[in-house]
Amino acid sequence: MAPVTQQTIPDEQVLTSVQPEDVPALAAGAAIFGTGGGGAVHTAQQVVQRALLEHGPVELVGVDDLTADDAVIMMSGVGAPTVGIEMLSSTAQAETLLTEAQRALGRPITTIMPAEIGGSNGVSPIGWAARLGVKVLDADGMGRAFPEATMISPNVAGVPCEFAVQADVVGNVDVRRTVDLTWLERHARAGVVASGGIVVAAHYPLTAETARGAVIPRTISRAIRAGHALLSSSDPVPAIADELGAEVLITGKIVDVARRTEGGFVRGSVTVAGTGENRGRLQRIELQNENLVALEDGNVLASVPDLISILDSETGHAISTEMIRFGQRVAVIAWPCDPLWRTPRGLELAGPAAFGYDLPYVPFERKSIR
Amino acid sequence: MAPVTQQTIPDEQVLTSVQPEDVPALAAGAAIFGTGGGGAVHTAQQVVQRALLEHGPVELVGVDDLTADDAVIMMSGVGAPTVGIEMLSSTAQAETLLTEAQRALGRPITTIMPAEIGGSNGVSPIGWAARLGVKVLDADGMGRAFPEATMISPNVAGVPCEFAVQADVVGNVDVRRTVDLTWLERHARAGVVASGGIVVAAHYPLTAETARGAVIPRTISRAIRAGHALLSSSDPVPAIADELGAEVLITGKIVDVARRTEGGFVRGSVTVAGTGENRGRLQRIELQNENLVALEDGNVLASVPDLISILDSETGHAISTEMIRFGQRVAVIAWPCDPLWRTPRGLELAGPAAFGYDLPYVPFERKSIR
Repeated sequence: MAPVTQQTIPDEQVLTSVQPEDVPALAAGAAIFGTGGGGAVHTAQQVVQRALLEHGPVELVGVDDLTADDAVIMMSGVGAPTVGIEMLSSTAQAETLLTEAQRALGRPITTIMPAEIGGSNGVSPIGWAARLGVKVLDADGMGRAFPEATMISPNVAGVPCEFAVQADVVGNVDVRRTVDLTWLERHARAGVVASGGIVVAAHYPLTAETARGAVIPRTISRAIRAGHALLSSSDPVPAIADELGAEVLITGKIVDVARRTEGGFVRGSVTVAGTGENRGRLQRIELQNENLVALEDGNVLASVPDLISILDSETGHAISTEMIRFGQRVAVIAWPCDPLWRTPRGLELAGPAAFGYDLPYVPFERKSIR
Repeated sequence: MAPVTQQTIPDEQVLTSVQPEDVPALAAGAAIFGTGGGGAVHTAQQVVQRALLEHGPVELVGVDDLTADDAVIMMSGVGAPTVGIEMLSSTAQAETLLTEAQRALGRPITTIMPAEIGGSNGVSPIGWAARLGVKVLDADGMGRAFPEATMISPNVAGVPCEFAVQADVVGNVDVRRTVDLTWLERHARAGVVASGGIVVAAHYPLTAETARGAVIPRTISRAIRAGHALLSSSDPVPAIADELGAEVLITGKIVDVARRTEGGFVRGSVTVAGTGENRGRLQRIELQNENLVALEDGNVLASVPDLISILDSETGHAISTEMIRFGQRVAVIAWPCDPLWRTPRGLELAGPAAFGYDLPYVPFERKSIR
């Protein structure tokens, strides 16, 4: 596949470590990158903050900092977030993952990275890295949250997944080598169910060479910066939008929530009625775990793989698809996805059609700054 | 656990290789050791015969022949035998298993052995060994067929299963390290379903040291010898019984078959009405995949873990629980299990109570020779 020009991040926006005081910002930012999905960040925030206080800060490195000695693997929680709230993970799980991943790879793993920056999976890897004493690649595999295993950046870039490891809280661990990510999804899901609903996973080993152009760069820095904007501003929504390069699509009130759980996914739509200067406008957000499409007067304002997040208009905190309810005051923001998702292969995997929408993808770009 | 005195096999009954001409005998013998279960042997017989003709005979070694350089692993098909008839395995599966098992073990595997001698799983490993160029341990993990992963000799002997590998025909492969065999059963079963119903598996790596007292010895030799007795005798039933040290419990006609498929198992019972000198007698065989208990006039004649096989009274060929039907002329034979199954731990795992029968276990011994 032809290389894709990825977003250039100014140096001053790049972090070289995650400190304990960054964790609330990372959690708030990861929730925004969750675009409605990715799982609640609160438990992960507590666990990670404790890990950093106990083991010290975590080193963040960029793709260009990786050397031939480095081996990177993605880590994430897989399963039903609702189960995750009750079945806490054990610190031994991350150690088991690392041990098995190293055995499968045949060399030490120096660096881990989140599989998805959105939601709890953007937060937990920082705590695992602190406990394991490894570096964290300032990048992730989605630049957001997505519901399926195939929707991951190295798969867009044509890098195959050599193996995947799953560890459960009981002490069971699996190493899978599947012919493709569709088979991985099928087998991993069966393993998650056999483990009671939730596991911790490591997959997609990468090198300095294969990581280049195959991950979404600097998303941990971006999430922390968005979170700091949220937590430090007296008017958080425009501050967050500014930090992300996002546009506020509407500010208003939730007037309708049509939501059902079907086939293991939350599906439905949310309707926002404009307030203040937006009075008289109605916007609908279609969702499947994540917010997929924002529509107004029959026009698509933004769609996957671009990012749509619904924020509490007062606090700026992201509201997930399962927590949204009638009467909430919200701001809907949208911002462009990484250029990798806009390639033909990226759109095939995660464009509107991949979610069953008969809509052409129109890249979302910020039209104004509020 | 205290060591168990295992059956001593006279030297002249021990084979040192499996030749192509032994394969029909092995298949017929393995079917008898299947005690009604273990899967049909015909496809395996064809595949193994071809493998031996192509790659030459397979070396059989005893537990005492193993050295510190040897590493042994059990191989078997796992899943629904009915699926196995339609979804043929690929020769690549055994190679994948060996590669992954060696990676998981960190050393070369020199020797494979059947997990169960009963049915197709007693036959197929000979073909895999021929293709892989490895030796075969003349032993198995059951000395018969059993329906569950926990019912295996090293588990009786207190040897833990370090890992299990599954490979499917598509090319997917899993390596599992579970906390015990109950968890292995649960995870492996989920993997089998995700693979479409059948896989080839390797598990329970053993050494010269751990294999001693933890496998059922010389069962391949015994199956081949029983099969040769069947195929070469003009009066096969007594010839087989003689070879196995079995007693013919009854000769008669199937007059009732009560059989249902429930919870993934075949359950029910078969009633045999005596003919000839047995006229007037009625014997009932309770079954769950395998023949479990033989009853007459309210008395238990034989029960698990001892072996009960229903043979065609004319040909001597074993009739499996799914092929048995009204009107068949049969001989029911029974013979003692390996002493390992008669230990408290063996009976806990595979005695009558393990199959839900509120019956005390009474060891079956041959009372007469016909």
